[in-house]
Amino acid sequence: MVSDTITIPKTQKAQLTCKFGLETELTEIPVPEPKDDELLLHLLYSGVCHSDVSIMKNAIPMPMPLTLPFAAGHEGAGIVVKIGKEVTGFKEGDRVGVTVVNRSCQTCEYCKRTGAEAFCDTPTHLTTGKWGTFQEYITVSALYAHKIPDGVDLAKAAPTQCAGWTIYRALKETNTRPGQFVAINGAGGGLGSFGLQFAKAMGLRAIAIDFGQAKHDHCLRQGAEFFIDAQTQNVVEEMLKVTNGCGPHGVINVAPSAKPLEDALLYVRKTGTIVIIGLPDDAKFTLDTNLMVFKGVTIKGNLLGSREDLDEVLQFMARGLIDIPIEIMGLSELPNAIKRLDNCQVNGRIVLDTSK
Amino acid sequence: MVSDTITIPKTQKAQLTCKFGLETELTEIPVPEPKDDELLLHLLYSGVCHSDVSIMKNAIPMPMPLTLPFAAGHEGAGIVVKIGKEVTGFKEGDRVGVTVVNRSCQTCEYCKRTGAEAFCDTPTHLTTGKWGTFQEYITVSALYAHKIPDGVDLAKAAPTQCAGWTIYRALKETNTRPGQFVAINGAGGGLGSFGLQFAKAMGLRAIAIDFGQAKHDHCLRQGAEFFIDAQTQNVVEEMLKVTNGCGPHGVINVAPSAKPLEDALLYVRKTGTIVIIGLPDDAKFTLDTNLMVFKGVTIKGNLLGSREDLDEVLQFMARGLIDIPIEIMGLSELPNAIKRLDNCQVNGRIVLDTSK
Amino acid sequence: MVSDTITIPKTQKAQLTCKFGLETELTEIPVPEPKDDELLLHLLYSGVCHSDVSIMKNAIPMPMPLTLPFAAGHEGAGIVVKIGKEVTGFKEGDRVGVTVVNRSCQTCEYCKRTGAEAFCDTPTHLTTGKWGTFQEYITVSALYAHKIPDGVDLAKAAPTQCAGWTIYRALKETNTRPGQFVAINGAGGGLGSFGLQFAKAMGLRAIAIDFGQAKHDHCLRQGAEFFIDAQTQNVVEEMLKVTNGCGPHGVINVAPSAKPLEDALLYVRKTGTIVIIGLPDDAKFTLDTNLMVFKGVTIKGNLLGSREDLDEVLQFMARGLIDIPIEIMGLSELPNAIKRLDNCQVNGRIVLDTSK
Amino acid sequence: MVSDTITIPKTQKAQLTCKFGLETELTEIPVPEPKDDELLLHLLYSGVCHSDVSIMKNAIPMPMPLTLPFAAGHEGAGIVVKIGKEVTGFKEGDRVGVTVVNRSCQTCEYCKRTGAEAFCDTPTHLTTGKWGTFQEYITVSALYAHKIPDGVDLAKAAPTQCAGWTIYRALKETNTRPGQFVAINGAGGGLGSFGLQFAKAMGLRAIAIDFGQAKHDHCLRQGAEFFIDAQTQNVVEEMLKVTNGCGPHGVINVAPSAKPLEDALLYVRKTGTIVIIGLPDDAKFTLDTNLMVFKGVTIKGNLLGSREDLDEVLQFMARGLIDIPIEIMGLSELPNAIKRLDNCQVNGRIVLDTSK
Repeated sequence: MVSDTITIPKTQKAQLTCKFGLETELTEIPVPEPKDDELLLHLLYSGVCHSDVSIMKNAIPMPMPLTLPFAAGHEGAGIVVKIGKEVTGFKEGDRVGVTVVNRSCQTCEYCKRTGAEAFCDTPTHLTTGKWGTFQEYITVSALYAHKIPDGVDLAKAAPTQCAGWTIYRALKETNTRPGQFVAINGAGGGLGSFGLQFAKAMGLRAIAIDFGQAKHDHCLRQGAEFFIDAQTQNVVEEMLKVTNGCGPHGVINVAPSAKPLEDALLYVRKTGTIVIIGLPDDAKFTLDTNLMVFKGVTIKGNLLGSREDLDEVLQFMARGLIDIPIEIMGLSELPNAIKRLDNCQVNGRIVLDTSK
Repeated sequence: MVSDTITIPKTQKAQLTCKFGLETELTEIPVPEPKDDELLLHLLYSGVCHSDVSIMKNAIPMPMPLTLPFAAGHEGAGIVVKIGKEVTGFKEGDRVGVTVVNRSCQTCEYCKRTGAEAFCDTPTHLTTGKWGTFQEYITVSALYAHKIPDGVDLAKAAPTQCAGWTIYRALKETNTRPGQFVAINGAGGGLGSFGLQFAKAMGLRAIAIDFGQAKHDHCLRQGAEFFIDAQTQNVVEEMLKVTNGCGPHGVINVAPSAKPLEDALLYVRKTGTIVIIGLPDDAKFTLDTNLMVFKGVTIKGNLLGSREDLDEVLQFMARGLIDIPIEIMGLSELPNAIKRLDNCQVNGRIVLDTSK
Repeated sequence: MVSDTITIPKTQKAQLTCKFGLETELTEIPVPEPKDDELLLHLLYSGVCHSDVSIMKNAIPMPMPLTLPFAAGHEGAGIVVKIGKEVTGFKEGDRVGVTVVNRSCQTCEYCKRTGAEAFCDTPTHLTTGKWGTFQEYITVSALYAHKIPDGVDLAKAAPTQCAGWTIYRALKETNTRPGQFVAINGAGGGLGSFGLQFAKAMGLRAIAIDFGQAKHDHCLRQGAEFFIDAQTQNVVEEMLKVTNGCGPHGVINVAPSAKPLEDALLYVRKTGTIVIIGLPDDAKFTLDTNLMVFKGVTIKGNLLGSREDLDEVLQFMARGLIDIPIEIMGLSELPNAIKRLDNCQVNGRIVLDTSK
Repeated sequence: MVSDTITIPKTQKAQLTCKFGLETELTEIPVPEPKDDELLLHLLYSGVCHSDVSIMKNAIPMPMPLTLPFAAGHEGAGIVVKIGKEVTGFKEGDRVGVTVVNRSCQTCEYCKRTGAEAFCDTPTHLTTGKWGTFQEYITVSALYAHKIPDGVDLAKAAPTQCAGWTIYRALKETNTRPGQFVAINGAGGGLGSFGLQFAKAMGLRAIAIDFGQAKHDHCLRQGAEFFIDAQTQNVVEEMLKVTNGCGPHGVINVAPSAKPLEDALLYVRKTGTIVIIGLPDDAKFTLDTNLMVFKGVTIKGNLLGSREDLDEVLQFMARGLIDIPIEIMGLSELPNAIKRLDNCQVNGRIVLDTSK
C-alpha cells in the first residue's frame, strides 16, 4: 500500500515570473487542494519549452489573458498523492503526466467533437488559467491526467506532454500515409526530434531541415532519412531532389518564420499539406494564393492534440520506439535554462528535476 | 438515325485573342480532326468566365505557357459530330460538355489518385494547350467529354463545366456537413450563384457576402439563408451574429483579394476551413499564423475538380435543383461581354450562342 | 426566476416491469437525488421504442445485465428542477432531453475518441444501469443532458433522444454524400420516418421500403423520393430500376431480419455501405462473402451516436426541417402502447405524457 | 538502344486449362499483337495464386464468365517488347508488371472515383476476359502496366501484382493507424506473408494467426509481433490477451471460412474493422447482428486495389522493406505447383520462370 508512506507538505517551491522577462523568483507557496474531480500530483519533472520563453517575455498573444505573477511550465510528470472524492480510476502512487490543458468543459461543441477538445470554449490552461509546472505540486482534472505506462522513464515522459503531443498530432494532421515523405522545418529542436522519431515509427519518410553539421548528425540519429542544411543549401532545390522532383506530401513548420513557410509552399507536393505549429514572435507571412490554387495546397494551424493522441504518444514510448534525448537540470536552475533556450543553445529537451 | 443529317464544314468561326487585352478578332479557321481517342463537337454554347478576362489580359501566371494567338473560353456544351475510332460509349448526336481540362495523362500520380486529376503532370488545358471554346467546333478526349443528361438545357449546361464544377468541388473541400454554415465571399457572381444553389441542395446553410441591394436580392433568390453587405456592414461582426457567435464552418473565397481573406480568418469557426478558388490579379495576402494555430484553421487552394464531381454537378442539374440565371449573347458579341465582365456589370453568367 | 416556483415531490409514479413480458405495474417510488455532477429532471414526456418491447420481453441480449424490477424507457424530455453542486452551464427551468446513455466515463479509449462514446467501457444505460424514462423524475449526468432549443416542442423532442439520434448517425455512417441514394428498410416506423426526413434535409435521395399503401403514402409524406412495397414488389428489381440499374449508395436496415439484409447485399451499389441498427429477436443472418468481395460492400453495426450527433439532431429540429408525427398517450396507458407496438400497429412514434 | 536486340517470336508456350480441374496442357499458341493503346510484354515470371486453383476447378463464381480453354495466372512481370502507337511514357526494355486487371474503362462511375477502379463496370480481367500470365507473352493496356522500380527483382515483383496489391489495400481498408493492432488470419501463406511485412512497414502491430510451429517461425520472421496457433490455442482468448483485453483494431481474413470470421467478430475491438479478401469455395458465413451493433463493427469486402496502391506497393519494395520469400519453378512444372497449392503445401509464393 503506497498511501501510508505519502506525506504532503503545506508549502512547496515554485519558480514565479513576477515581471515579464527571463528572470524568475524561487518562492515558497502553498500546496493546493484538489477539487472533487481532481488529483493532486507531486510533480517530479517538468519540461521547458520554447513557448515558456515567449510567454515569460509576453511576446505572443495568448488565447487567455496572462496575469502576473505566474508559474510557467506546461509539461510535467509526477505521482498522484491525493485524490478528489468524485474521481475514479486512479490510486495514490499512480504515475501521471500533465499538459497545458488542465481542464476542458466536455460540453462545448469542440469537446464533443472528435479530437477537437484543444479548442474548448472555456478551458483551463496552465500558466494563464492556473500556475504551471515550474513548481513541486499541481492539481489536475482527472480527465487530463494521463497515466504513464510502466517502463516509461518519468523524466522522459514530461516533454511528451506538450512537445511530443503537439508534433504527433501535427504528423497526423499532414494526412500522410506510411511510405510518404514528410519534411520538418527546424527538425533539430525538441519538437522536431520527437517528430523525426514519430515519423519513423509511423512508417513515414522524414526529411529534416535545420542548420549545420551538429544538427545534421543529430537529425539522422533521430530517424531522418534525409537532411537539408538551410544554411548552405537551397532548400527548395534539395527538397525536390530527394523526393524525385515531386516534393514531400506533408510539411511541418515547427518555427514558422516567413522564409521557411514561403519555401514550403514552393516545394510541397501538389495536393500536399503544410502544418503550422510554432508560435513565433512575428506571426505574419505572405501567402501566394495562385500557388495555393494551382498546386492545391492545404495549410493548417495545429494546436496541441486530443487526449486520445496523448495516450497514443505514451504507447509509442512504452514500446521503446520514442526516446528523446533530454538534459536534466534543477528547478532552481530554471533561469539558466530559459536563457539558453532563448539563445537556441539547447539540443533535444531540457527537463527540470523539481527536487533540485 | 442522327448521323446522316450531320454535315461538318471545313472551316468555322473563332474569336481569337491576337494581342493581350480585351479585344478579339472573329476569324475563319479550319475545323479540327479528332484523334483516335477523341470526339469532335459542334459547340453550340460557351460560357464566359472572369478567368477569361484575366487570361486575355495576361494578368495571371498560368500553370502552362500562353501563346498568341489563342481562342479563350473553357466551358462549352455541344453535340458530338464525329468519333475517333478507339472511342467507345459515345454516338453522334450525344450532348456533351467540355471543360478547361481537355485531356489528362491517366498515368501520373495525380491521375491515378482519381479525385486529383486536375493536378495532372501533363494535362492539355483549353486556351494554353489547345484553343478554347470561343469557336464553333472543338475536339476533346473522350475521357473529358461529359454527357449532359436529358432535360438539362444545353445553354445552361455550358457554365457548369467550369464555374459549377469548381464551386461544387470547393463546397466539398470545405468538409462541411449538412446543417452546417458555409460563407461565400463574392456570392453574387457566376460561381457564387452556383455555390448558393449547390449549398442549399447539399443541406448546407449558405451565408452570402457581396455588395448592395441588388446582390442581396439576387443571393436570397439563389438560396442564401443570410446576406451580409460588405459595403455597409462589418462583415466579421455580422457573420458572428448570424452564426450564434461561432462563425461559419466553411468559407469559400471566390475572389480572394486580401481583405475578404483576412476577414475570413477572423470570423471562421474554430477548426473551420477556408477554400480559395479565385485567381486574382494580385494574389498575395498576409496570414496571421498565431490565429491559424489558436483557431486550428485550414486554408486550402482548390483547382477545378474531378470527372466524378462534374458528373455529380450534372446530376444535380438534371434533378432541377440547380438553375443558374444566364444571359445569352452571340459569339460575335464576345468583346462586349468581356468588357462588361471586366467592369463587374454581369449578374449570373453570360453564355455565348456560337451560331450568332 | 424560475426556481422559487418549483416544488419537488418526495414520490412519483413509475411504470415498472416486475416480470418479463408486456405488463407493467404503475408504482409509487421515491424521487431520486442528483449527484454533484447530475441534474434532476421533471420528465414531461417519454417516447416508447420498439426496443422497450424487446427488453421487457427479455428477448435481446443486452450489453449490460437486466435486473427485475425495472422501469424501461430511454428517450425523454423534461425540465431541470435541481442541479448538482459541481454542474455548470444549466439553470432550473432549462428544457433538456435524456437518452439511453445516462453517463459515460469520459476516460476510456472510446470516450476519448469522441464520436465513439456510445461504446464506453463502463457506461450507465437507462433500464439496465438505472431506471428509465417510464417515470416522472430522473437524474442525468450533466454531460448527457441535451438542451432542447427554443421552439422545439418538448413532446416531439422526446423521440429524438433515441430514434432520431440513432437514425441520424446511421445516415452519417452510410458515408453517402448529398445527391446520392439511400435506401431505408422498414421506413414507415418511428426510426424510418425520422430517417426519411433527415435524408431529405441532408440532400440525400431516400428510397423507402415497407409494406402496403398506408406506409406508401406515409413515407412519401416524410420525404421519400421512391417507395418500394416489399409485399407486392420484387425489392431487388425495383431498387435497381429506381437507381438507374446501379443500386443505392447506402442502405439502412431498421429491422435486420434475414431477408431484407440478404436483399440489401444484392441490390446495394458496388462499394456501397449497409448499416444495421435494429436489434431483432433473431439476430443471425447469412452473409455471402463472394458477393461482399466482388462488390466491395461494407456492412456496419451502429449503436446510437455521439453527443455531437444529438446536438445536430436538435438543431435540424429547431430549423423546422424535422417534424415527426407523434401520438400522445398517458403514462398510465403504457401497457396498451406496448401491446400495439408489439403488434406493429403504430404509425410514427408514441410519446407518453407522464402527467396522465 | 534496346529495341534492336529484341526479336519477337511468332509463337509461344502457354499452359492451358482445357477442362476444369488441376491439369493443364503446355501448348504452342500465337504471340498476340498489341492494340494502339497497349504494350506487348515478354513475361519472364508469373506468380501462382490460390485463386488460380479455385478458378481452374471452377469453384468460385467469377464476376465475368469463364470460357474453356483458358490460360490462368494473373500476376506477372516482364519486359516491354512492342509498343502500341498511341502509348506514351514507355520504351522497349522497360520492366513492367501485369495484374488481374488488364484494362478498365476509365469512364464509368467506379473508374472515375478515387481508388474504386477495381469495380469498373466493363473491365478486362485476365483469365476471363483475356488469357492470363501462364504464357510467355501478353498484351496489356498501358494504363495497367506498372513500371517496376530499379533494384526490384523481377521474379519477386510478380507476386506483388495480385497478392501484394490485394493485401496492401486490405491493410489500408482496415482504417488502422500506425501503432494499432491488426490481426491476419491465415498469415503464413503468400498474401499473409506480404501482409505481415507491409503491416510492419506501415507502423502497425501485426498479430499472425495460423497453424503449427513452422508457420509460427515463418510469421515472426515476416514481422509479426505475436503469433496465435489456431490448432492449439483458443484464438479469441489469446487475441484478447495480447491486446490488453481490447482486441485488434483491424482484422484481415485471408481465408474467410466460417470459423475464423465468426471468431473475428468476437475478438475484434469495439468499433473495429474486419476486411474479407479471400474467395473461399464455400462463401457463406453467419453473422450475429446484435454483436455487430453492440460492438459497432464494420465488415468490408475488398477486391484488389487501385493503380495508385500498386505503385505504392512497388515503392515499398524498392526501399527494401518488403522481401517476400519465393520459390521458383518452371512454367512446365505448373501442374505440380497447382497440386501443392491445392494441398496447402506451399510456404510463401511460387513463381514460374516462363523460360523453363
